[in-house]
Amino acid sequence: MGAAPLLNEKFYVQPQKFSFENFALENGEILPKVDLAYETYGHLNTARTNAILIQHAFSGDHHAAFYHDGENRPGWWDNMIGPGKAFDTDRFFIICSNVIGGCQGSTGPSSINPSTGKPYALEFPQVTIKDMVAAQKRLIEHLGIEKLYSVAGGSMGGMQVLQWLVSYPNHVRSAIPIATTARHSPQQIAFNEVGRQAIMADPKWNNGNYYDTEIPRSGLSVARMVGHITYMSEKSMAEKFGRRTKLASDNTKFHADFEVEGYLRNRGDFFVRRFDANSYLYISKAMDLFDASEGRHLSEKFYELEAKLLVLAFKSDWLYPAYQSLEIVTACKVSGVPVSYIEIEANYGHDSFLVETNKQSQLVRHFLSRVDELIY
Amino acid sequence: MGAAPLLNEKFYVQPQKFSFENFALENGEILPKVDLAYETYGHLNTARTNAILIQHAFSGDHHAAFYHDGENRPGWWDNMIGPGKAFDTDRFFIICSNVIGGCQGSTGPSSINPSTGKPYALEFPQVTIKDMVAAQKRLIEHLGIEKLYSVAGGSMGGMQVLQWLVSYPNHVRSAIPIATTARHSPQQIAFNEVGRQAIMADPKWNNGNYYDTEIPRSGLSVARMVGHITYMSEKSMAEKFGRRTKLASDNTKFHADFEVEGYLRNRGDFFVRRFDANSYLYISKAMDLFDASEGRHLSEKFYELEAKLLVLAFKSDWLYPAYQSLEIVTACKVSGVPVSYIEIEANYGHDSFLVETNKQSQLVRHFLSRVDELIY
Repeated sequence: MGAAPLLNEKFYVQPQKFSFENFALENGEILPKVDLAYETYGHLNTARTNAILIQHAFSGDHHAAFYHDGENRPGWWDNMIGPGKAFDTDRFFIICSNVIGGCQGSTGPSSINPSTGKPYALEFPQVTIKDMVAAQKRLIEHLGIEKLYSVAGGSMGGMQVLQWLVSYPNHVRSAIPIATTARHSPQQIAFNEVGRQAIMADPKWNNGNYYDTEIPRSGLSVARMVGHITYMSEKSMAEKFGRRTKLASDNTKFHADFEVEGYLRNRGDFFVRRFDANSYLYISKAMDLFDASEGRHLSEKFYELEAKLLVLAFKSDWLYPAYQSLEIVTACKVSGVPVSYIEIEANYGHDSFLVETNKQSQLVRHFLSRVDELIY
Repeated sequence: MGAAPLLNEKFYVQPQKFSFENFALENGEILPKVDLAYETYGHLNTARTNAILIQHAFSGDHHAAFYHDGENRPGWWDNMIGPGKAFDTDRFFIICSNVIGGCQGSTGPSSINPSTGKPYALEFPQVTIKDMVAAQKRLIEHLGIEKLYSVAGGSMGGMQVLQWLVSYPNHVRSAIPIATTARHSPQQIAFNEVGRQAIMADPKWNNGNYYDTEIPRSGLSVARMVGHITYMSEKSMAEKFGRRTKLASDNTKFHADFEVEGYLRNRGDFFVRRFDANSYLYISKAMDLFDASEGRHLSEKFYELEAKLLVLAFKSDWLYPAYQSLEIVTACKVSGVPVSYIEIEANYGHDSFLVETNKQSQLVRHFLSRVDELIY
């Protein structure tokens, strides 16, 4: 009898950086220098045919899986990426990069503007989902990959998946857009706009110039709190908190009487330590401006597509409701693109793709194992 | 042939004030003097049996119907209150008062604290829904009314309706709680908490002391924007705005690209002109603390009840979902209280009780006309 498998073996990863110059954006502006922070998991095969690009959501980053040295928490999708997991690193070479406009190592508003030697702040151009994806294409080419085995992601990650299909229809063999939409509804825009207004209402935001003073902590925290409510379902909140009250930590009025209040405040406080307020503005605006169909029918954008799709939505996700995933499915059907669609029973709302991943894992694993032979 | 009826005849009303002293609150504190701003429509009959108390929602007030001199817009429920309307002023004597804690004439945090000669600000005690209703009971007694024909209201108005039933079960003949709940879910608390945090994050809030400086305009505006999203349905937003863009009114970044953004900003700006930020804190907290069942089963609170109920919910209302109304209905059934329940097909979300009132009007009219004879 051999040794038992190390079920809880910890895998480590180091972030890498890819840089390139003179990047032309969708709006005509040029970024003189672009850094992309990225990580990879598993190994690229010699034919370079087993690469999967993972796309992160709004506040995510390139640290999708495994551990950094000295960290207690792994990457944000470690439950989906690893040996024997849905995105099986024994079989696939997984890549994840931080979006441009971000603040975790890729070029964004907090990066140094080479023409001034100071952070860009609002001098940073308005990047789009299309720009984010075009920058990733450079990285993929740099890694010597002509065609991705798959591209996958949830929420804003799913928008990037769709944009990959539209921008590079012959460079993707399969795609997994999860809990996402081809375009934001006015309600989704409205929630983002409230977050932006909360940030810009904070005097410390100072029209984006706070990098050498104090960050707009209060505004960014309120923005995150709004987001958090929309990421959870009413049911998961009820199960997690109910109407349980907490002991007041102070004697002031309007302290957190209920556990849910304290939780939201903590999430807000935690977020401001790791996320840049200007990146919040730029990225949320990129999501709102995104329209995969570019004013046409989405199906028209799919005619050249060679990929097969797995589209996933979650029953309790009220922020990205299932009807938006069904619009993607319909566009596939109309344009003859093979597509599977599942609306997963899950309780955690929009966050389900991050935290309630059992069924999602199986669906992704089966889909990836049959991309070649499957008749839809 | 007589003259045609004046269908669009304008009716006028003047606000009134009722004051009383030494009002003991639920938390044991005493308000030395309480003003209640109120309005009445129609005439009290000699037996004083035709009075209906209308309860306003969070940001509403006592101006429920008719016009004030020189005004272009009537009261907030003018489509429901008037001659021949659901609350028929040819038949009933309608009363509506501004809640305590409010800022439209009733005593609240912006009122003068007699012991200091300055506005209360955060020295104002935390009033509850029970306190609001106890103050109304004084007004009803002052008007010489022993028993109300009905008490009706939507949203926070519905909470007050439920509290009337619990506090004064023998003084109400019928009740119409609309789009409401016996207690807030953690999601509802969370949305209110975001609004409070937005206000308190505004440095101009200044721990509540802004009455002789500048009001916390930005924070209150963001709070209102969050509220507005929750009052509408995704569908009504899609129908009203779609993804239509508007011409930028300025060249700054992060202006309102989409109509829905401009709309929300306008609603926020409009709101800060008429509503006090501290009242926002106190009243939203009163809603969150409200629990009609006071920790017991709601049905236990209804055993003494003599009233008959009409409970209304709206299909597109995701802020106060129908299951919360059904909990009220269940409590009635368990305790033997006659109850009718309708979930109305309507598109406008939580705001339906204010703006999409055709079916609601008929249901209320029929219910009120049959309170005496109806067997449920």
